[in-house]
Amino acid sequence: MIPTKPYAATDLGIFRFLDGKLLVYLVELKIEPFVGRYSLPGTLVLETEDLEAAVRRAYREATGWSGAYFEQVYTFSAIDRDPRRRTISTAYMGFPDRPGEPFEPVDKYRTGEWFYVNDTPSLAYDHNEILKVCTDRIAAKLNYTNIALLLLPGEFTMSELQCVYEQGLGEELETGSFSDKVLSLGMIEATGGERPAGNVPPVPLYRAVHRELQEIPFI
Amino acid sequence: MIPTKPYAATDLGIFRFLDGKLLVYLVELKIEPFVGRYSLPGTLVLETEDLEAAVRRAYREATGWSGAYFEQVYTFSAIDRDPRRRTISTAYMGFPDRPGEPFEPVDKYRTGEWFYVNDTPSLAYDHNEILKVCTDRIAAKLNYTNIALLLLPGEFTMSELQCVYEQGLGEELETGSFSDKVLSLGMIEATGGERPAGNVPPVPLYRAVHRELQEIPFI
Repeated sequence: MIPTKPYAATDLGIFRFLDGKLLVYLVELKIEPFVGRYSLPGTLVLETEDLEAAVRRAYREATGWSGAYFEQVYTFSAIDRDPRRRTISTAYMGFPDRPGEPFEPVDKYRTGEWFYVNDTPSLAYDHNEILKVCTDRIAAKLNYTNIALLLLPGEFTMSELQCVYEQGLGEELETGSFSDKVLSLGMIEATGGERPAGNVPPVPLYRAVHRELQEIPFI
Repeated sequence: MIPTKPYAATDLGIFRFLDGKLLVYLVELKIEPFVGRYSLPGTLVLETEDLEAAVRRAYREATGWSGAYFEQVYTFSAIDRDPRRRTISTAYMGFPDRPGEPFEPVDKYRTGEWFYVNDTPSLAYDHNEILKVCTDRIAAKLNYTNIALLLLPGEFTMSELQCVYEQGLGEELETGSFSDKVLSLGMIEATGGERPAGNVPPVPLYRAVHRELQEIPFI
């Protein structure tokens, strides 16, 4: 009966929404045995850190950026999940507070790149499984929280917001009643600005009233 | 930059519902520095186990019983959460598959006892915080899953089920429409049996159609 003393780690699914699809930020590894493979950004937890501090550091190291909403998702503990050593990893989701800004990863990784979650390469470690658990969690939370607002940039159109819900819920929504519903819930407000739309009238822009995750049953 | 190699642990909130209130199973410790204090059951993870195997073992050691539905809740990593050594603990909830049966804890603990969650002693470690996170999760899940069915014994009355929802949702529900709703969702079925009720007619008994957690938006 020997208790295990694994390395503690965290892996981070960083997400945003663009052109009607969910994107995840992946990094290309330069350490054996995974040179050239992509993974979620992650790190071992240091003696001076709790998980949340390690998550914020991993995010900075992967993006050169520090602002984001973070949420713990699940802890992965399969004995052989890391071929080099026993590591138990707690996965977090991160939603950058300026989803449109370019990232600048530090030299820890070869490169970092946004991928559509439905079109990623095969990932190192058990990161395909971690990514699946994160995206399932996002889809579930669309039903009862304002998570959609964290996936969009600071200003967005009503149809962009509707698109997040339609992707997450897997069904088309009627435009008029969708708009009435989200406005009545007090989730968003008009910025007063508009986006030019060619030879149709310009489209009004909205922003989140709160950019913290809240429970707002939508259906 | 020294990575931490904490002990990996799990702590287990075991719940059931009785007389309109949520109960949690607590154990009385006999190890320093917490002799005589109550805590959630828990254990260090062994080298041969993943978290789920450790959870099942911790459950058997605390109850003498093995049947239950388990669900991972959250991982707690504060650096000083265990005064003896650095331990990162992943909390699970457990719902015994025979919630009425008496438990027989092994000699790991001095005793084990059911407490109303609103009336527990001050717990060892960070277990008051863990208990709070578990009960918040249960309350949230009442809104969109069949978790209520896992908290009740194998046979229950309609008013016992309604009571779980009213406690969780924090509001009174109209009896007729509650009954129509849960029957229309296909969550429960009549057993054919009845419970005597003194000098009023006997009360029909129901059981869960499925005793696995399912997403069933209730509202």
